[in-house]
Amino acid sequence: MNSKRNVYLDMKSIEEAKECLFDHFQTYNTGIETIDVVKAKTRVLAEPAVAALSSPNFHAAAMDGIAVDARITFGVSEEAPGTLVPEENAFWVNTGHAMPEGTNAVIMIEHLNILDSHVEIEAPVFPWQHVRKMGEDIVATKLLFPRGHRVNSYSLGALLSGGVFQVSVYKQPRVMIIPTGSELKQWQDIRPDQMKSGDVVESNSVVLGGLCQDHGALFDIHPMIKDDLSSIQNAVEEAAGSYDMLCIIGGSSAGSEDFAKPVISSLGEVYVHGVTMMPGKPVLFGKVGQVPVFGIPGYPVAAIVAFEQFAGPLLIHMQHLPEKTLQTVLVTPARKIASKLGQEEFLRVKIGSVDGQLISSQLPRGSGSITTLTEADGVIRIPKHIEGISEKERVKAHLLRPLSAIENTLVIIGSHDNTLDLLGDQIRRKNFDVGISSSHVGSMGGLMALKKGGCHMAGAHLLDPVDGSYNLSYVKKYLPDHPVRIVNLVMREQGLILAKGNLKNIQSIEDLKTGKFTFINRQPGSGTRILFDYKLKQLGFKPGDISGYENDEYTHMSVAVAVLSGRADAGLGIKAAANALSLDFIPVITESYDLIISERFFESQKVQVLLDTIAGDEFKDRVLALGGYGVEKTGRILY
Amino acid sequence: MNSKRNVYLDMKSIEEAKECLFDHFQTYNTGIETIDVVKAKTRVLAEPAVAALSSPNFHAAAMDGIAVDARITFGVSEEAPGTLVPEENAFWVNTGHAMPEGTNAVIMIEHLNILDSHVEIEAPVFPWQHVRKMGEDIVATKLLFPRGHRVNSYSLGALLSGGVFQVSVYKQPRVMIIPTGSELKQWQDIRPDQMKSGDVVESNSVVLGGLCQDHGALFDIHPMIKDDLSSIQNAVEEAAGSYDMLCIIGGSSAGSEDFAKPVISSLGEVYVHGVTMMPGKPVLFGKVGQVPVFGIPGYPVAAIVAFEQFAGPLLIHMQHLPEKTLQTVLVTPARKIASKLGQEEFLRVKIGSVDGQLISSQLPRGSGSITTLTEADGVIRIPKHIEGISEKERVKAHLLRPLSAIENTLVIIGSHDNTLDLLGDQIRRKNFDVGISSSHVGSMGGLMALKKGGCHMAGAHLLDPVDGSYNLSYVKKYLPDHPVRIVNLVMREQGLILAKGNLKNIQSIEDLKTGKFTFINRQPGSGTRILFDYKLKQLGFKPGDISGYENDEYTHMSVAVAVLSGRADAGLGIKAAANALSLDFIPVITESYDLIISERFFESQKVQVLLDTIAGDEFKDRVLALGGYGVEKTGRILY
Repeated sequence: MNSKRNVYLDMKSIEEAKECLFDHFQTYNTGIETIDVVKAKTRVLAEPAVAALSSPNFHAAAMDGIAVDARITFGVSEEAPGTLVPEENAFWVNTGHAMPEGTNAVIMIEHLNILDSHVEIEAPVFPWQHVRKMGEDIVATKLLFPRGHRVNSYSLGALLSGGVFQVSVYKQPRVMIIPTGSELKQWQDIRPDQMKSGDVVESNSVVLGGLCQDHGALFDIHPMIKDDLSSIQNAVEEAAGSYDMLCIIGGSSAGSEDFAKPVISSLGEVYVHGVTMMPGKPVLFGKVGQVPVFGIPGYPVAAIVAFEQFAGPLLIHMQHLPEKTLQTVLVTPARKIASKLGQEEFLRVKIGSVDGQLISSQLPRGSGSITTLTEADGVIRIPKHIEGISEKERVKAHLLRPLSAIENTLVIIGSHDNTLDLLGDQIRRKNFDVGISSSHVGSMGGLMALKKGGCHMAGAHLLDPVDGSYNLSYVKKYLPDHPVRIVNLVMREQGLILAKGNLKNIQSIEDLKTGKFTFINRQPGSGTRILFDYKLKQLGFKPGDISGYENDEYTHMSVAVAVLSGRADAGLGIKAAANALSLDFIPVITESYDLIISERFFESQKVQVLLDTIAGDEFKDRVLALGGYGVEKTGRILY
Repeated sequence: MNSKRNVYLDMKSIEEAKECLFDHFQTYNTGIETIDVVKAKTRVLAEPAVAALSSPNFHAAAMDGIAVDARITFGVSEEAPGTLVPEENAFWVNTGHAMPEGTNAVIMIEHLNILDSHVEIEAPVFPWQHVRKMGEDIVATKLLFPRGHRVNSYSLGALLSGGVFQVSVYKQPRVMIIPTGSELKQWQDIRPDQMKSGDVVESNSVVLGGLCQDHGALFDIHPMIKDDLSSIQNAVEEAAGSYDMLCIIGGSSAGSEDFAKPVISSLGEVYVHGVTMMPGKPVLFGKVGQVPVFGIPGYPVAAIVAFEQFAGPLLIHMQHLPEKTLQTVLVTPARKIASKLGQEEFLRVKIGSVDGQLISSQLPRGSGSITTLTEADGVIRIPKHIEGISEKERVKAHLLRPLSAIENTLVIIGSHDNTLDLLGDQIRRKNFDVGISSSHVGSMGGLMALKKGGCHMAGAHLLDPVDGSYNLSYVKKYLPDHPVRIVNLVMREQGLILAKGNLKNIQSIEDLKTGKFTFINRQPGSGTRILFDYKLKQLGFKPGDISGYENDEYTHMSVAVAVLSGRADAGLGIKAAANALSLDFIPVITESYDLIISERFFESQKVQVLLDTIAGDEFKDRVLALGGYGVEKTGRILY
């Protein structure tokens, strides 16, 4: 099997690879077409647009009133009013009307004394007063837009006003997207509840299609192709004749069933295989016939990065447009960021605006996780010669959402709870401009973020083993100088999450000591971990007594899915997580999950919106429907 | 005629009017529809999207290699290699494959010694190494997006991966646009060369249609309606039953033929008529049936401002989205800005990035000039309680173009010449990311802008009457401490621009003294004005000798159009302007039109691109084709 493996060509940096790409396709031409201006929005002019008409095309009244030759008004005054005779030496006009022959000024209707047979005026007017002179806006022959101008809504007005009803535009590039991979299912062909182990929904082609549109291109999606050299070859060969770009998704790496490279080299030439970037390293591209062909990695974030770094910019270039740029801002990382030397990394981050400072917190780095992009507010590009970024350094982040949206977002850092998502959704029912962003770093992590000014509030359920209270003693100990308020979000049941039916018959934490069962833990600093350690101590157990104690997850749902998938037999977590995946659950404790809110944000409009929402019956009803929650204290200000 | 005039209701501020609008239509509902995810890009979720599937939906190999139960590798080392037997205790897998039953780790192919019947390994692996665990990206039941999320390309991937193939979205608002005005012609019905005096191309409906799309709405355009109460009434009444918003364009003011208000009040209710803003004051809105109806002013910039302040935000609100915001930057006005108390002004400005500073220069303020918006890089909103802005104050500007485009633009301020437009277009032939922005303030104005750091270069043709040289003596006098380079752009013919056929038989500047002819002048500080004054002095004439001396225009083309329209009999200007409008021309002088370039920008890439373009034959050929130009010195560095 090893014999069939491909080999990466010399890996190139992003810059080198891009240069190579643009060298090869610098002059690629999609052609030009002439279309009606009214259909030209978002299209790019292939010829300069020159006005055929002046606008206005005549001297036009700029006010409602009466048009005169200004000279006949010279010398009139209050003492010696002038007389105008309509249809003789003066002519009624409305705004926009052509100035009658021989007139060059409009007297506003408000300044006239209208009598039966004539009109009196008490002040002179100067020539061209209240007249839009011919060509005032556009002079015929004026260059309205140079070639390369992308027509927008405003442009439509200037073109039509200038008598330009048709324009030459570059044809939109046409992209054929070819998804490959034997494990993939097309969404049209399956139902989510009938998917088998090993089945994956093919989604990259749809994402890439969307990105083609975002880059001004048209696209078609080829029916899925299994991992088979000749089928892919046939599809590529056929499409190369009628498209401006091909994107083969999947099989771009160097494995035995990675066919993108052999396909392109058999039909044309491969220019680059492998780029020192993460995600997206296994991207490749070359030429078949006259057109660029990309091998796009199959992991979703890698696919997007590969497209956006290479295919997208080339599509923009084909339309003679300057490269797209994202707005950048300076952010302060909430914690140190490690990074690998030798590859440029696209680190997805959430960005919170707290007290006027932009704080970034890093999302998981896996290239397989599309949600790291959908949840991201921005991307920090870490250059390949950098080993990491310290938490004090301000660094540039490219924004994926408007800054205004980030500024209108409440940042909640701390323990994970399912009702936070529900809260975010409930807020959006009435407040379209307030969002919440929650990061799950455990209860203690939340308190530390609050202390460092990295969030507006923390979610926590920290049990004080001495008096059985929640959160308050921790706040006093760890945030002595940081005034906060504590508001209960929910009461919730924590307990053992077990496989459906509990065939292994686990009844309590004691049973985990037998060594027969594998436990899945939560990360240090989480309230649930603290609870588990407290329970072990009560029972006189040591961590080493529990098989799997060292394996941890960051959320209740991940614990639940570990149990669902058989990776663990039991985990400690909330009942709502067990319910969500129809797992068994044995209660251990009912705890208070609270929001610890910085005093200085408490009165802000955003926080008040959140508190109003929590206090509402609609929110409470939705919480109760999840199961495992109590709302008897919900919204109560505890401190 | 006065009797039929409407009256403005109490004028409202933008904030008051907006509050009134949103109070009345706060809960207006376009309805909800369910659509396939693949068609949902740019649509807004009406329900939270919850994952139906985990992703991955199984434990998946994250590398090409061999899958094992990690325990069988414990203890192996270089000294004591372990043996794996494919299909017995180890299984070949490629990235993405489901992990075979009983395995929980992948050993990368690179770390295997593949022998004939078995495989050797020299290091242990830990459990779950190189495995994407079930639910690693998405856990079934996870909230993927809250309601109100606008689906983008990335979202499509998360939705499909999470097994969500259909989504509930808000229906797009449907807008009926009703253009009115007896003077208007639909572009489909006319040819630019057959337009008569008084004919105006109706363009607002097309612009507003584009803006509807920009605000996520669908639109239809009603056939043009003449200024007739009952026709407009009928159209509004019919459309109110099947659209979510109506926009009547034109007739929103208080004139005798302004029917928008009587139409709305006869069929429903008018809430606001008149807003203290400029442009856009005569906007009005009310309700007919259940739907909002706007009266949009007919001047193009007023129409756009009225739409963007009121109709647009309401459309956004109907889709449950937060209000759109434009990126803002701080700019320094190149000169003092005067402003009227009592109305909020939307001042269109060009913005140049010079030496890292953003300098704004104001465009004409007329609401009839669509090109003031198409040429603008940004808008400064001057609040109604402010009387003006001094030139040292930094003020906020809302950007209409990306900052990157502004930063890639060469700012040329000074004298107007037709070849500057041509130069901009020629640059764009090869350099998609370099633009030029030229403002016409006259040659002296250009030198002053250069001195103050407001531009990269100035265009000038300043004649030294002493030695007949151009520009150099002015540079030495006015920019003694500012190192510059001077490069010739073109030689050009200046002369008298006269009506076609020159029926009045004007032969020279001397003829203008007869008092029989009206002259149109250029503004003080322009090179052409300096030339004219010099010629008058040579002839021993005084300004008072020339009828029309006090009327001035800012560009050669405006002078030409003044002659074309009969407003003046003669003007001094370049031959290219006369040629463009087929006017007569009598040469007076051949002059040098140069670019005065700040030394410190001379070596910059942008300036070098410009100089390369000027030096090219293609540019010179296009200049010669205009007529009235010489290129014998074009591109020569004169100083």
